[in-house]
Amino acid sequence: MVERPRRRGYATVMNMQITPEFETALQRRIDTKTKPQGALGLIEDLAAQVARLQGRLDPVMESCALILFAADHGIAEEGVSAYPPAVTRQMVLNFAGGGAAANVFARAGGIDLRVVNAGVIGGPFDLPQIEDRPLGEGTASFLNGPAMSAQQLDRALEIGRDLGADGTFQAMAFGEMGIGNTSAASVMAHKLTGMALDTLVGRGTGLEDASLAHKRVVLGTAAARTGELSAREVLQEYGGFEIAMMTGAMLGAADAGRVVLVDGFIASVSALAACALDPGARAAMVFAHRSAESGHGAVLDALDAAPLLSLNMRLGEGSGAALAWPLLRAAVAMLNEMASFESAGVSGPA
Amino acid sequence: MVERPRRRGYATVMNMQITPEFETALQRRIDTKTKPQGALGLIEDLAAQVARLQGRLDPVMESCALILFAADHGIAEEGVSAYPPAVTRQMVLNFAGGGAAANVFARAGGIDLRVVNAGVIGGPFDLPQIEDRPLGEGTASFLNGPAMSAQQLDRALEIGRDLGADGTFQAMAFGEMGIGNTSAASVMAHKLTGMALDTLVGRGTGLEDASLAHKRVVLGTAAARTGELSAREVLQEYGGFEIAMMTGAMLGAADAGRVVLVDGFIASVSALAACALDPGARAAMVFAHRSAESGHGAVLDALDAAPLLSLNMRLGEGSGAALAWPLLRAAVAMLNEMASFESAGVSGPA
Repeated sequence: MVERPRRRGYATVMNMQITPEFETALQRRIDTKTKPQGALGLIEDLAAQVARLQGRLDPVMESCALILFAADHGIAEEGVSAYPPAVTRQMVLNFAGGGAAANVFARAGGIDLRVVNAGVIGGPFDLPQIEDRPLGEGTASFLNGPAMSAQQLDRALEIGRDLGADGTFQAMAFGEMGIGNTSAASVMAHKLTGMALDTLVGRGTGLEDASLAHKRVVLGTAAARTGELSAREVLQEYGGFEIAMMTGAMLGAADAGRVVLVDGFIASVSALAACALDPGARAAMVFAHRSAESGHGAVLDALDAAPLLSLNMRLGEGSGAALAWPLLRAAVAMLNEMASFESAGVSGPA
Repeated sequence: MVERPRRRGYATVMNMQITPEFETALQRRIDTKTKPQGALGLIEDLAAQVARLQGRLDPVMESCALILFAADHGIAEEGVSAYPPAVTRQMVLNFAGGGAAANVFARAGGIDLRVVNAGVIGGPFDLPQIEDRPLGEGTASFLNGPAMSAQQLDRALEIGRDLGADGTFQAMAFGEMGIGNTSAASVMAHKLTGMALDTLVGRGTGLEDASLAHKRVVLGTAAARTGELSAREVLQEYGGFEIAMMTGAMLGAADAGRVVLVDGFIASVSALAACALDPGARAAMVFAHRSAESGHGAVLDALDAAPLLSLNMRLGEGSGAALAWPLLRAAVAMLNEMASFESAGVSGPA
């Protein structure tokens, strides 16, 4: 029996607790649909998860927002990325212009896209398409000291929580842009799970072998300057403004009873941090895809996550989450719209 | 260089051949999008496949039809299915009423659904939602003789070809319903590929161990009564009316320059047969998902197919194909709508 108090949002309408009776009724509702038992695989699991989250046998899944957090990273100055830091700002302008993969996939799926400047170098954008909520012009390099102050972390989590609970969406997807952020995420995952750093470091936007070796050395040095850390300390020491804000947003969305649609490697590390801060948040999370970034598999395992898609993608931006949204909607439609053997007059097994 | 003459349909507008210049321009178009090279994985491959199929760098992917073929199988009388043959007809009525998984997923994806009675026991449906094109009231049992006559096969392929090329859709998905049809598909796959029959036989709608063992014996006996066969002979000896009609429909759709969205185990065996009859049809095929029906993996390997989804589904009806359609549309949107590094003013790798 899972008890999950709801603080606000859609699920408070019911505010019911998940009882054994609810579980029985839910499984019966799925098993009496006109299909062999279990024949819709993960789609059935997904529908059940949403039903539990909303505390109702006829859950609603009509709208999804994708919030894209962007910020720069001091660690990028250490040559850990194939792209220069200026690309973070350029890509935010690309989001504003509607030309990035996240824009295209969000439009294709009917998803509301919001872009948040969580701390991009170069100051506020002052554009209607961008929400300026910067916590600085990039983090400090975490090679020799903490990436951000405790005050910056508090503020990032707070802004994120508010954004994650804003609006009336049933699902919230989160994405990120930040040159250097696979470096931050790798060290964070290492500190949060205790897994070997090397298995968590990958090519990011496409490092060559020599640069990957350099990245490993830099991150190994950075990781070695601290011992065991709390989740908050991990975020402060090695996080990024966009990663911390996304962590807060996941907590805010989960508290609001919404599905948290988790994208790729960086987003999954935010999910790790969110679950470390509040284990109850895990029940709201749907994992969109298995990224090609090496290290994502290990993070997914740590989260006991079975992602919906495996398309060899490694872009971030919430691009995988946007592609998974139609599956989430279809799963709930299955629960609400499929006939039962009885209602359709179909015979069961002989 | 791949030369694919187009006989009719959308692609005839261009009727261009795929030249090395086209390939270079296509790869450049994909690689200059604002993302690291290859970062969208299978989505990039999918976009390229559609561009080649339509012979244009700005392909169109706006509409999809799902044609659902239903028919009964004489082999079902041998106790090879967990469900009674009456379920085929009952499920067709469920499709007509809009309550099956195929209906729900087609609606969710904005897909046009057509239901074709290819040979269901009980005669014509005489319903506006069902197209009655029956070739008999189920096939003969293939345990002791051919499932259908050469005339029935010809007619099934011909009707299928016409249906596959009908309308103005850019993508055609095909599904099936027919109690007993995993048995037909397993023996067909064995005869078409030469792979061991046992690796191709699975639980279908959910056989228990003892019934699965019985199914293996029945199918082994049936397979042993013939030697090596042509694709046509395989269809006639062991096929179903819905399987043969779907094979024709795949050929008709491929000839019309459309994407053929291939569903699960049964549909993949139709795809095997279609490719055996016309190897050029393979270029049009997009494989929607990896089914949980054991044997599907081997058939996918024989087709050199990398499916888009792997959701542990095993329902048929085109349910997996319908769920994959949004990915196909998103892939083409990526090609047409994403900005390039140059147009968006984004820097390339450092």
